[in-house]
Amino acid sequence: MPDPTPDLSALLRPRSIAVIGASSQPEKVGGMPIRLLRELGYGGRVHPVNTASAEIQGLPATPSLGALGEPVDLAIVAVPALASADVMAQLAANGTRAAVFFTSGFAEVGEEGTRMQQALAEQARRHGITLLGPNCLGAMNLRERMFATFSPIPLSGLPPLGDVGLVSQSGAFGAYAFALAREAGLGLSHWVTTGNEAGLQVADVIEWLAHDDDTRVILTYMEGCRDGERLRRALAAARAAGKPVVVAKVGVTEAGARSAQSHTASLAGEDAVYQAVFDEYGVHRAESLEAFFRLGYVLSRGRRPSRWHSDSGLAADAVAPVAIVTVSGGVGIMMADRAEQLGLPMPPMPAAPAEALRRAIPFASTANPIDVTGQIVAQPRVLLDALRDVAACGEYGSVVAFLAAGANAPALWPELQRTVAALHDTADSAPLLLCGLVADDRRAWLEQHGCLVFREPAHAIEAVAALTRAAAQGAESRGEPGAEALPQLPRIPADANALSEHEAMQLLAEAGVPVAPHGLARDADEAVRIAERLGYPVAVKLCSREILHKSDVGGVALNLHDADAVRAAFARVRDAIGRHAAQPGGAPVPFEGVVVARMVRGWGELMVGVRRDPVFGLVALAGIGGTAVEVFRQMAFGLAPLSVPRALAMLRDSRAEALFAGHRGNPAVPLERVAQVLVRVSQAAAAIGPRLDTLEINPFIVTTEGPVAADAVITLRH
Amino acid sequence: MPDPTPDLSALLRPRSIAVIGASSQPEKVGGMPIRLLRELGYGGRVHPVNTASAEIQGLPATPSLGALGEPVDLAIVAVPALASADVMAQLAANGTRAAVFFTSGFAEVGEEGTRMQQALAEQARRHGITLLGPNCLGAMNLRERMFATFSPIPLSGLPPLGDVGLVSQSGAFGAYAFALAREAGLGLSHWVTTGNEAGLQVADVIEWLAHDDDTRVILTYMEGCRDGERLRRALAAARAAGKPVVVAKVGVTEAGARSAQSHTASLAGEDAVYQAVFDEYGVHRAESLEAFFRLGYVLSRGRRPSRWHSDSGLAADAVAPVAIVTVSGGVGIMMADRAEQLGLPMPPMPAAPAEALRRAIPFASTANPIDVTGQIVAQPRVLLDALRDVAACGEYGSVVAFLAAGANAPALWPELQRTVAALHDTADSAPLLLCGLVADDRRAWLEQHGCLVFREPAHAIEAVAALTRAAAQGAESRGEPGAEALPQLPRIPADANALSEHEAMQLLAEAGVPVAPHGLARDADEAVRIAERLGYPVAVKLCSREILHKSDVGGVALNLHDADAVRAAFARVRDAIGRHAAQPGGAPVPFEGVVVARMVRGWGELMVGVRRDPVFGLVALAGIGGTAVEVFRQMAFGLAPLSVPRALAMLRDSRAEALFAGHRGNPAVPLERVAQVLVRVSQAAAAIGPRLDTLEINPFIVTTEGPVAADAVITLRH
Repeated sequence: MPDPTPDLSALLRPRSIAVIGASSQPEKVGGMPIRLLRELGYGGRVHPVNTASAEIQGLPATPSLGALGEPVDLAIVAVPALASADVMAQLAANGTRAAVFFTSGFAEVGEEGTRMQQALAEQARRHGITLLGPNCLGAMNLRERMFATFSPIPLSGLPPLGDVGLVSQSGAFGAYAFALAREAGLGLSHWVTTGNEAGLQVADVIEWLAHDDDTRVILTYMEGCRDGERLRRALAAARAAGKPVVVAKVGVTEAGARSAQSHTASLAGEDAVYQAVFDEYGVHRAESLEAFFRLGYVLSRGRRPSRWHSDSGLAADAVAPVAIVTVSGGVGIMMADRAEQLGLPMPPMPAAPAEALRRAIPFASTANPIDVTGQIVAQPRVLLDALRDVAACGEYGSVVAFLAAGANAPALWPELQRTVAALHDTADSAPLLLCGLVADDRRAWLEQHGCLVFREPAHAIEAVAALTRAAAQGAESRGEPGAEALPQLPRIPADANALSEHEAMQLLAEAGVPVAPHGLARDADEAVRIAERLGYPVAVKLCSREILHKSDVGGVALNLHDADAVRAAFARVRDAIGRHAAQPGGAPVPFEGVVVARMVRGWGELMVGVRRDPVFGLVALAGIGGTAVEVFRQMAFGLAPLSVPRALAMLRDSRAEALFAGHRGNPAVPLERVAQVLVRVSQAAAAIGPRLDTLEINPFIVTTEGPVAADAVITLRH
Repeated sequence: MPDPTPDLSALLRPRSIAVIGASSQPEKVGGMPIRLLRELGYGGRVHPVNTASAEIQGLPATPSLGALGEPVDLAIVAVPALASADVMAQLAANGTRAAVFFTSGFAEVGEEGTRMQQALAEQARRHGITLLGPNCLGAMNLRERMFATFSPIPLSGLPPLGDVGLVSQSGAFGAYAFALAREAGLGLSHWVTTGNEAGLQVADVIEWLAHDDDTRVILTYMEGCRDGERLRRALAAARAAGKPVVVAKVGVTEAGARSAQSHTASLAGEDAVYQAVFDEYGVHRAESLEAFFRLGYVLSRGRRPSRWHSDSGLAADAVAPVAIVTVSGGVGIMMADRAEQLGLPMPPMPAAPAEALRRAIPFASTANPIDVTGQIVAQPRVLLDALRDVAACGEYGSVVAFLAAGANAPALWPELQRTVAALHDTADSAPLLLCGLVADDRRAWLEQHGCLVFREPAHAIEAVAALTRAAAQGAESRGEPGAEALPQLPRIPADANALSEHEAMQLLAEAGVPVAPHGLARDADEAVRIAERLGYPVAVKLCSREILHKSDVGGVALNLHDADAVRAAFARVRDAIGRHAAQPGGAPVPFEGVVVARMVRGWGELMVGVRRDPVFGLVALAGIGGTAVEVFRQMAFGLAPLSVPRALAMLRDSRAEALFAGHRGNPAVPLERVAQVLVRVSQAAAAIGPRLDTLEINPFIVTTEGPVAADAVITLRH
């Protein structure tokens, strides 16, 4: 049963705070929170708890929580690990609703620590106390000036108050990110570090922020996630609330993942699976810290692309066309390069405004990028007319303009202001994003009028792509792939570790997956009869629940052209049982028969599978089969069961779609049909339920009729 | 014959400057250079030339260059295009050595302009005048405060004087880059924009800067290059001088390349070919403006990696191992991810310093990333000892340390200074790169002591990769692939448009390229004799200089297993000549025979070719053949003839190396052997000389013996 959604209000909006282990020395772990809460203007009550002093940093101290005589919302705990169980008991007795444990010395130091941490978590759960940490740097609510942290970093200045919530597993990362947000002027609402995650996990914070009115965008740093279900629920909540989530997830490469595993207690799943989760929920992934904050800026302040003529409802994969207006041809090309890489269409300027621009500047280019040339220094009105025209024409979802140092030019600025203000007041005009050198005060003015500003041309284009994704995420209304769509599948023997190939093929066929025509034969005569019925050439393969690597023991014969060949193959394949038993570790297995299958001819192979990820459950993968599997390693992943749009995206991301495009004299196959087959494979796996370990179809032959399964392996767990 | 290396000293270090079309109004094109030269402290003589005024902006003016009575080094020309021929004649009469033409209205506006531009270039060449422009924004030498530009941008401030030369084809880009360099505090030596490139091209400026003592790093913006030979010569000069070249080359994607072609007069070659040129000369390619300047910073100020134990002479592809020291596990993982992506090895900390670190901080991680934990806030000495130990141990080429806000901490800074200073004074210690928040004055101090500073963890790692590349470039001493290595090849018929398959296979065999055993048969009996000699199965293919797409007309029969099959195939294949003649546009061609070739069995296919790029000449390409060509589009390019290291890099970049790694029960094949074959193919193409149009081997079957050519097409030009 999933845990209930945790309530973080006592943690992040406490009316009273007790500091257990309070210190008079403000630089100590137990002193810093008191200093921060007092100096930075927290409005609630603060109760230092200290047995020795009656006053701590100017506040009356209480010798124990029990002596306080009233329940507190939040306890900040800065005592050694060994004292933590006792403290937790006091919190329970007091009726404390939430606790932050700074203390280290738990799961991160070994087995004994892990046991203490489990006990602490159990205590908190029993008494309904929301637990943050242990071994964490705490939390802040910037709106309420609530600083439950021992990091001194708020003392050197706060970022502006804003609507970006930041949650980090790592304290050190969180502190650095806080400082960078301050430098970047990114407005924060909350800041939370989760440390060892004995109670609250990153996912819980995301989910709470998804419902928090002060937060519009959620920035998340994670090394791994132990509870995939919780993370998915949180991301679904953010999506439902239309709040973009930006993730910096480390451990992308093998070396990184190794470090991540040694660094945290988390079981770091495979990065590609995380990516599938992020794709499923429209999460924005940041590849660098700079991009992390830039996405925060873009998504919290940027207007979403407007509706455009060819927009048929902002589907999940819709990409808004962009108009690029530039005073420099070269920078225009730079931006066009990036737009093409991100798949943003760049339709040319419509006829009327193009004509107007050419009348004013004969050598302007009205293709897209729209090159107004350096001439606009002398004729600013021409630039501004062009901007207004493309923003209003309905052809574009967004307009990006590179002005070099133009916005600082005295002749241009007042006119630019008028144009931006007019666009800002016109609800259905496409949002304008500027790139160039802009003085700070002018930049602030532009941002207040809905116009993002960048130095780097590529960043302006990336912003358009991120805003398009965010718009699509908000518009996307499809629910989770429905369980009601799952096929009814036959019973699976309770003691089986795998299905035989025949069983696997039957199961797939019943789920609507095209499989090679085949039959099960117990003797050579039957094998020949089946072969004659199917038509030659055929394959003959040993059918067994026990022997999965049948070709290793000579259990496969391909390309059989006549009855004699089938008879000979039957004998050889049946004898594979003996060869299997003679292997080191091999055991005798009963002969269940052979599969006789028609050889399917096609012009390529897919490999499609479903496997069980320890964190996120069933994950589907698809890509080009054969040599390409090792060579290009371009498998795409998706959560199973798949939706059709997700399956289409997997075909695109793995490049498998090229096999169906009609190259080299092969016919084109509608991608929708192929995607539908992938969906059915994933549904078949899901229908097997908790018994499924892996399902693999390899090769999945590419034919005129779409992919046809030539082999299938299904392994089970107990 | 190549043009001689142009001398830019009169342009960039003039002792006297005449301004033709000088204006009293400083904001005019003919007024701005005078204002800049006067206000910003140019030390040479400035002569305004103006027929109407005796004084211009406080300087005595001369009515004509003729009236000046002395030759000037440089003329800045701001007159309409139609007057340019007349001005050029005056320059010649005066003995002017160099000229900057700001004037637009030349090749960028059409045919008439192109003719005027050609005439101007011809005049300049005849009189030995170094010509910059027309339609350019001019040039600056910041050391000599020489401003031959009409851009007002220097008035709002100059970047610091430094050793980075910047050359841009585009004026608008150049101006924006100047402003960004100023903001980034990047020290510039020269700034040149080349505009229409009637005389000087970007390549000429690179070559001159390669010999300029004031320049250490060359930043280049280009949209395209018309003269590949000149660019290669320039890049070779920079490599020989050990000066890194950073290129922002736009037009990466198809959309970008289209824009680039419409924007400039340059014939923009295929981007992959430019990349091959850049790889050949160790050029650093910047994917964004931010990276452009960051690479300038890194390469001009950064120490190259030190020698390390396993360094066997810094080969061209050597990658220096990096030590990552971090106070945050999470940021350490981020850096490890990037290092892995860039192929930087991360060996663990040697035993002795690892032991010392663990003694001080028991839960520190001494794997690499080396996680000293947040504990070092309390024990700064531990961090500094670890930094000193890893820098000195000889295991690492570079050390990257993430300190978060540590360098700003009062307790850490003096100790950090001592450590950095000590490392700086130890010649063979590995250079230290810092990442974190560092106050500006401390950052300046660190940089002066050889320590680069970054905010973004990934950037510190990218800096290590760039510095490694620069060190390898400097160490690389191999010359151009030698012409003496080219094989002697048979004469090629003067009127042929192509070689027949038999001729092509012979030519490759003589160049030392493994080809399928084969023979030429004029009749069926001979075909059978050859087949019996080679052994079955064989292929029979029409052999013709005229019919290149022989399978389209049924001119290919594969997998023939006996004499009867060969006879039948011979008849069918011979008749292909008739089918070819019967096609629309087909003409009768003589029967030259058939190639009988043994079917080569392998486990994969390469496609290897050489083609003639209009700008850079012969270019080799290689990748996985078959379906992968369309699907993954992962061909790698190299200038032909190839060197072995370049061929190895192409096998890696195209992922073709995976075919030789011994997957799926196939034997491993030494990559050196495969690379050697690629080199021979490229040498064969080069040996054909100017007649070669394209050479393509497809399929090049992957066998135990390495790749074996199963087919070859060589087309010729006249």
